[in-house]
Amino acid sequence: MPSIRLHRKIRHAQICSRRRHFPAQFSDEVWDKLPKLVQQRIIDKKLKFYAIDAYSVAKATGMGARINSIMQTCFFAISGILPREEAIAKIKTAIKKTYGVKGDVIVEKNWKSVDQTLEHLHQVKVPDKVTSQIEMPPVVSPEAPAFVRNVLGPMIGALGDSLPVSAFPIDGTYPTATSQWEKRNIALEVPIWIPELCIQCGKCAIVCPHAAIRTKVFPPESLVDAPETFQVMDFKDRDLAGMKYSIQVFVEDCTGCRMCVEACPGKDKKNPSRRSLEMADQIPLREPERKNAAYFMRLPDADRTKVKQITVKGSQLLRPLFEFSGACAGCGETPYVKLLTQLFGDRAIIANATGCSSIYSGNLPTTPYAVNEEGRGPAWSNSLFEDNAEFGFGFRLAVDKFKVQAEESLVRSDIAKSHPQLVEQIKNAVQIEEPEILEQRARVAELKKILATKSDPESKALLTLADYLVKKSIWIVGGDGWAYDIGYGGLDHVLASGRNVNVLVLDTEVYSNTGGQMSKATPVGAVAKFAAAGKPIQKKDLALISASYGYIYVATVAMGANDAQTVRAFVEAEAYDGPSIIIAYSHCIAHGIDMAMGMTNQKRAVESGHFPLFRYNPDLAAKGENPLKLDSKAPKIPFEEYAYAETRWKMLTKSKPERAKELLRLAGENAQKKWLYLDQLAKMSYEVPGK
Amino acid sequence: MPSIRLHRKIRHAQICSRRRHFPAQFSDEVWDKLPKLVQQRIIDKKLKFYAIDAYSVAKATGMGARINSIMQTCFFAISGILPREEAIAKIKTAIKKTYGVKGDVIVEKNWKSVDQTLEHLHQVKVPDKVTSQIEMPPVVSPEAPAFVRNVLGPMIGALGDSLPVSAFPIDGTYPTATSQWEKRNIALEVPIWIPELCIQCGKCAIVCPHAAIRTKVFPPESLVDAPETFQVMDFKDRDLAGMKYSIQVFVEDCTGCRMCVEACPGKDKKNPSRRSLEMADQIPLREPERKNAAYFMRLPDADRTKVKQITVKGSQLLRPLFEFSGACAGCGETPYVKLLTQLFGDRAIIANATGCSSIYSGNLPTTPYAVNEEGRGPAWSNSLFEDNAEFGFGFRLAVDKFKVQAEESLVRSDIAKSHPQLVEQIKNAVQIEEPEILEQRARVAELKKILATKSDPESKALLTLADYLVKKSIWIVGGDGWAYDIGYGGLDHVLASGRNVNVLVLDTEVYSNTGGQMSKATPVGAVAKFAAAGKPIQKKDLALISASYGYIYVATVAMGANDAQTVRAFVEAEAYDGPSIIIAYSHCIAHGIDMAMGMTNQKRAVESGHFPLFRYNPDLAAKGENPLKLDSKAPKIPFEEYAYAETRWKMLTKSKPERAKELLRLAGENAQKKWLYLDQLAKMSYEVPGK
Repeated sequence: MPSIRLHRKIRHAQICSRRRHFPAQFSDEVWDKLPKLVQQRIIDKKLKFYAIDAYSVAKATGMGARINSIMQTCFFAISGILPREEAIAKIKTAIKKTYGVKGDVIVEKNWKSVDQTLEHLHQVKVPDKVTSQIEMPPVVSPEAPAFVRNVLGPMIGALGDSLPVSAFPIDGTYPTATSQWEKRNIALEVPIWIPELCIQCGKCAIVCPHAAIRTKVFPPESLVDAPETFQVMDFKDRDLAGMKYSIQVFVEDCTGCRMCVEACPGKDKKNPSRRSLEMADQIPLREPERKNAAYFMRLPDADRTKVKQITVKGSQLLRPLFEFSGACAGCGETPYVKLLTQLFGDRAIIANATGCSSIYSGNLPTTPYAVNEEGRGPAWSNSLFEDNAEFGFGFRLAVDKFKVQAEESLVRSDIAKSHPQLVEQIKNAVQIEEPEILEQRARVAELKKILATKSDPESKALLTLADYLVKKSIWIVGGDGWAYDIGYGGLDHVLASGRNVNVLVLDTEVYSNTGGQMSKATPVGAVAKFAAAGKPIQKKDLALISASYGYIYVATVAMGANDAQTVRAFVEAEAYDGPSIIIAYSHCIAHGIDMAMGMTNQKRAVESGHFPLFRYNPDLAAKGENPLKLDSKAPKIPFEEYAYAETRWKMLTKSKPERAKELLRLAGENAQKKWLYLDQLAKMSYEVPGK
Repeated sequence: MPSIRLHRKIRHAQICSRRRHFPAQFSDEVWDKLPKLVQQRIIDKKLKFYAIDAYSVAKATGMGARINSIMQTCFFAISGILPREEAIAKIKTAIKKTYGVKGDVIVEKNWKSVDQTLEHLHQVKVPDKVTSQIEMPPVVSPEAPAFVRNVLGPMIGALGDSLPVSAFPIDGTYPTATSQWEKRNIALEVPIWIPELCIQCGKCAIVCPHAAIRTKVFPPESLVDAPETFQVMDFKDRDLAGMKYSIQVFVEDCTGCRMCVEACPGKDKKNPSRRSLEMADQIPLREPERKNAAYFMRLPDADRTKVKQITVKGSQLLRPLFEFSGACAGCGETPYVKLLTQLFGDRAIIANATGCSSIYSGNLPTTPYAVNEEGRGPAWSNSLFEDNAEFGFGFRLAVDKFKVQAEESLVRSDIAKSHPQLVEQIKNAVQIEEPEILEQRARVAELKKILATKSDPESKALLTLADYLVKKSIWIVGGDGWAYDIGYGGLDHVLASGRNVNVLVLDTEVYSNTGGQMSKATPVGAVAKFAAAGKPIQKKDLALISASYGYIYVATVAMGANDAQTVRAFVEAEAYDGPSIIIAYSHCIAHGIDMAMGMTNQKRAVESGHFPLFRYNPDLAAKGENPLKLDSKAPKIPFEEYAYAETRWKMLTKSKPERAKELLRLAGENAQKKWLYLDQLAKMSYEVPGK
């Protein structure tokens, strides 16, 4: 049985290729950094062993952190599959073919990195015997729960084949909160917090795609036995005066995307390029920050009833129940999913359409959905592209039915006589604001205590249903491919039903997960698969289509443009007693952008008029007010400034310059027209004359 | 082999039950009216033979033409399945259960009809031998084409089982224009035309669901050998001065619905209750009008380039290519389908979703789609509920591909050298208005003549494709169940594609064909299956949803409210070089109305604000104008006046009076709000500032 599998090999390759600290001595030092077992295998198998500091090469040649061309070059340089010179020539031709449409600069950078690779690839001298004292570290921490250690651990270690069938859950459900045990350590650099510059805005935490930077507020008395390097400051908030505040980076889970640094408004007045967050090498920080993070997690979570959840700052004091997923570094979707779990995660049931979100949310071996201190967290499942709205609708129907059964059983029970007040309160509870829901949860806990003392079948049955007396939050999540296209027929039907479901559309405008095909969400002028010449017609307006029903809460949000509006929309959507849909502009690697600037691109999308922000609340129309509130302003930057910061638009100027010009003009005009339309819609009268 | 099958039995039952002329002697006379063969069978089988003038009973008891309770009573009265008294009691209970919710009046009418039935059901004395001289008439005319005589005829005569498989078309395609050979003679009364009161408006013809009343304009010299009773008058039209005009009723195909009479505005000034059309007994008219109709058909059709097609009057001078279908008497859908064929039938390809329209359009043995003098007519096929838009989209793609192939082949051919002008003209032809299309058809005919003289494979191939050089009109037709619900995902996708397809939604608001279930088109307050307590939420606004794309032509039409706007919308939709959708309000038996008043109910739907009329033309937006033209006025009658003329609303006042009141209020308020919204939309500015 081979004990070192591909998965682990890749991890080692990553480790071997990223020690930027010792560029000169790199190939000399690498041997001594290997664990005993790896050294032994290399010696036993008489392997030739090569090393390259690929990230240094990438950085030096302007490739950023992209090492794919470099590693490919290494493979051909040493494998002997083709003569070396011929292989290099073919790689360069392939680069030209793949990236040519994206511009000469990108081609030349890649070519340069190929040339540099050959200079920096060195064979490592392998001694006759093992010299290392390093033991292979365990794949997962020994502190992990048994299931993680015994089942997920072997899977992470690429030993899943050795597991017996009996090790797996019999009904296919998997425990959540397991991604915390899979420490990937993939970031070269991670943010460090400089408290004296911090304004406690929470922006770093809200934009983080991986919940790898978090804020917490806690009483000073909790602060005992803090690790030496744990940082803390006074919390600046009137309502929670006297509390302490900390920002913690989870350096082993951080992907190094830099979005938090870019989002940070806490600038040094004397040196504005210096902010409250700055990037630093991860390795020296790994050990101390691991301890700090563990300590941070042990500190008590904020009292949810005392935090202003509807603000960015407040929402970020709530524990994320979606963490450390395998989404791309800088992902534009996961910050929205994470926010959902911060606000409603302890009572959320989530139906997820096929797409990126189903992959990063549900991929084995570990799961990013997590639980809070009480063990509560989202229940999640994935359905198909074509029926996810219906799938989530089923959750709604089931939950409602269980609630009715529980209520009927409750009023028939002896408890209705023995505890009439409790039963009445449970039955008549208003559950819109979170404090109301927490009160109901307390009542139901009391009920469950009483039920636990009873042994009659009715009480036992009611005990299994009692939790449904607390409001659940049903979410239907998916991408544009699902919502605008493949699953739209069902989505429309479910929204039209009038039932209380919440839909979150992670709109990257381009079927990201299946490879960047054109969808009905793709805007005019953008290039995508099946729209190589730029899409000729405009984007479907799913938001106004949904609003046309009159009884659906609708919001368009773009966190990078207006995070406060994003939080407000989530809270309003969930509180609305009917269907709601949030269309969330999500930047994406498929846009061809510097992902660190993802939120900036979101801002440009809004400021150019491409993605106007609004909220449509039917409750306002019921009062005779205009239900549409515009949350963004008239286009104020040229469309080009938004579009040409993204390769998906820019590449057309290379392949079809004349058409690119015309489509850009058209896209800009559409943005202007859309604004004009929305602005007039928002000013319409809703007062029926003579009513 | 039994020679008298159910089909024919029912026909005889109808004949036997409708002779209102001789109520007293009815049961005495009926024997003498039977054909020899039927008399012989009755004698041979020693049948007891009963007769009732069921229509007279129905009329006398206020049941109109509804004889179902009466015939059911006859069955139980003479079959002996249950003791007579018990059977009658059970029938009455069943009536109460079925119609109770529709009101006491309806129950009492039905009960009365049951009682009267017993008084008017008489046994006929059967003689010992055949007395009749009447031969069984042939099922179809001997003048019918061979396929109709040999295949459809036996099927109509319920002898389909006797046909060999080889009799059927090998590819499943059926010839059209066959319904003309299936003379049903089901009307007791039919309209007769009084020319001196006629204003030649064409309204009688446009509303007729069965193309059983038609108008024609022709030169006086055509008028030779006219049958004695054929009526004609001078055509009052400046452009076609000197022409003659005739209105012809096809009494054997008429269902007696009276819609034409109700629509007729040609009133006698001295006696306004007398109109240019009035109902008369069918039987005396049968023979003379059969001859008149045949003569009418032989008169030449109007020159399509000289007729003002965009007017009601003009459109009705065009030959309908949808005729004599099996739709309900007074159907609200078929007038739209018929109009489509009058305007575009000679080049239409129609994809039809499952629903009423697929049944009355495609039911065996005969087909209502027909052909003109040149043998051209719609090609039609039915697809599933869930994919009809895609099915029609396939027609578009195929037709476009064939056209491109034909063009490519043409420019490569020798003809491009020998007839350069013809080829250039064919290639560059503009084909929007009908005269342009007819010119192209003439050019293509010339091309085909040339091709027919050539024997090379390329020319032969081009000959098979040449017809695609003439513009085809692609139509996607279906009901609300398809368009709003089951097929909506695909419909949205096809409309969003931007391709030139025309969608006609026959909107009865209630899944008519599958039994009247609630659809997303069902309005708030209306009762339907799955909405027994009245639908609590408002109707989906498919029109505004479609308009949200900006590049889809959208029209809402209701022929009974504004027939001129209906015709205009059809012409504009077809001319628009992109997707178009017409949402056509269609009254329906499922609404629980007097079908003769169907068009009046359509008018009420518009006047109450329930179904506002508009046209949204993207070509206007492209010019900076507001694309939305409102074609109806602010609500001017109380919502109740519309709704409570229909059982689907009214019945709720019986079953849930309080809820009925509330839902009626809500529906009325929605109508007001919708108007307010549309009115403001129609006044919006589309001029982008600074453009």
